[in-house]
Amino acid sequence: MNINSSIGIFDSGLGGLSVLKQFIRFLPYESYVYLGDTARVPYGNKSVEIVGRYAEECTEFLIKKDVKLIVVACNTVSSNALDNVTRVAKDIPVIGMIRPGSLAAYRTSQSKRIGIIGTRATINSKSYEIELKNLADNQDINIYSKACPLFVPLVEEGMLNNDATKQIAHFYLDEFKSKNIDTLILACTHYPLLANVIKEILPYVNLIDSGEHSSVSALRLLAERKLLKEEKNIFIERPDIKFFVTDLPQNFHIQARSFLGFDVDSPELIDL
Amino acid sequence: MNINSSIGIFDSGLGGLSVLKQFIRFLPYESYVYLGDTARVPYGNKSVEIVGRYAEECTEFLIKKDVKLIVVACNTVSSNALDNVTRVAKDIPVIGMIRPGSLAAYRTSQSKRIGIIGTRATINSKSYEIELKNLADNQDINIYSKACPLFVPLVEEGMLNNDATKQIAHFYLDEFKSKNIDTLILACTHYPLLANVIKEILPYVNLIDSGEHSSVSALRLLAERKLLKEEKNIFIERPDIKFFVTDLPQNFHIQARSFLGFDVDSPELIDL
Repeated sequence: MNINSSIGIFDSGLGGLSVLKQFIRFLPYESYVYLGDTARVPYGNKSVEIVGRYAEECTEFLIKKDVKLIVVACNTVSSNALDNVTRVAKDIPVIGMIRPGSLAAYRTSQSKRIGIIGTRATINSKSYEIELKNLADNQDINIYSKACPLFVPLVEEGMLNNDATKQIAHFYLDEFKSKNIDTLILACTHYPLLANVIKEILPYVNLIDSGEHSSVSALRLLAERKLLKEEKNIFIERPDIKFFVTDLPQNFHIQARSFLGFDVDSPELIDL
Repeated sequence: MNINSSIGIFDSGLGGLSVLKQFIRFLPYESYVYLGDTARVPYGNKSVEIVGRYAEECTEFLIKKDVKLIVVACNTVSSNALDNVTRVAKDIPVIGMIRPGSLAAYRTSQSKRIGIIGTRATINSKSYEIELKNLADNQDINIYSKACPLFVPLVEEGMLNNDATKQIAHFYLDEFKSKNIDTLILACTHYPLLANVIKEILPYVNLIDSGEHSSVSALRLLAERKLLKEEKNIFIERPDIKFFVTDLPQNFHIQARSFLGFDVDSPELIDL
């Protein structure tokens, strides 16, 4: 691996494209390899052992692509199997979602009353909660977690802003109002796409997108290791991204556009 | 200057606190010196010569504070007098608003139809327009600029979300709808506080906060020069910021809270 190597990002499916979007925002000059394990998605209801094995296989694939950084976009893997990734990655640096998201939430919150929403697997793992309590050391912190299982299928159906989505969002989020949280971690790759709906219900709450903060962590890490490409004046029309999937979702292009905001090339179908 | 030196930020007044907010978001471990030239605000309607002289005096003040980076939060100074700052700063790196904001807008825009809103001085200087056209080289780019002079006093009056503000925003922004822009540069430190109102009128347009992108440029620059402090686990309750003003605005604490989202210590009154 060297300065011209790509940044590797993997996810159980296409949700990690919201993380890729944040990387492109702050690191547009880099090239990317995105792997979505669409044949085995979702990871959220699978055992820790299986998630660990899948994560190792994704990592091995990215290593073969000579990446200079591995980004674990999947909150389930970040919560349950980051050690597997780090072990397999050896000297390639690894960035997950939990630490950047927790750090950002902890320093953003004034009241130290923080909410977390995610899939059942992420919420049950208590990964963000443990990280936040570590950060708080022995100081007061109040954490309120809530699994919002319908949010992923709603986003995948493209229902980002209609009445049913708003009703469901109220059902999940209204309880946060009485908790007086000032910060809410979006602990799932799909949830940033619902930010507008969430903001309508909780207008004075800071929303933390773990993907955004993982991209800033990556920027720092790569800059310190002299592994960042130079900023260029001349721009390519589109970011340099190679997509790999283990199954070809019928609506790949629609979903990619929804997550990234622009059209992308077709993915290459691979076996892990 | 060394790794433990502060980051210096100056502005004609308190608007630059929106830039400081973005720095704290991504560089919370750093210490800051903020200088607001509140005795001579606003710079926007003054001659280029006077703005240049004031900018040099602000720069000299920050140099005496042994800063490791000078951030020109003021769009008027960034547009008209960045050379003055760079010349006086000598070997201290300088980051203005124009280049980071233009770069972000250029790479975000798919259609290369970009809007710019700012004060009359910034719009008249064509600074963003010139930078964007340089970036586009000989390729097609359509730029639509609009001065929105009422936005600054509305923000300073705390009228961020009421009906009058919305009406005025419609008055300024409705014309962008027919231009089919996909990206809008908020080329004034005060405008990010009106992002919600602007988003209501232009829901499918990407808003570019130059302050946000200047903070990411700073992160990169400092990391590459090994001038970033280490990330710490244990957090101070509040970021380490020293405020200096040339006149004490009566509502300093209210404004600081509005821009930063938290309460701050009283500023020190100085002469330039």
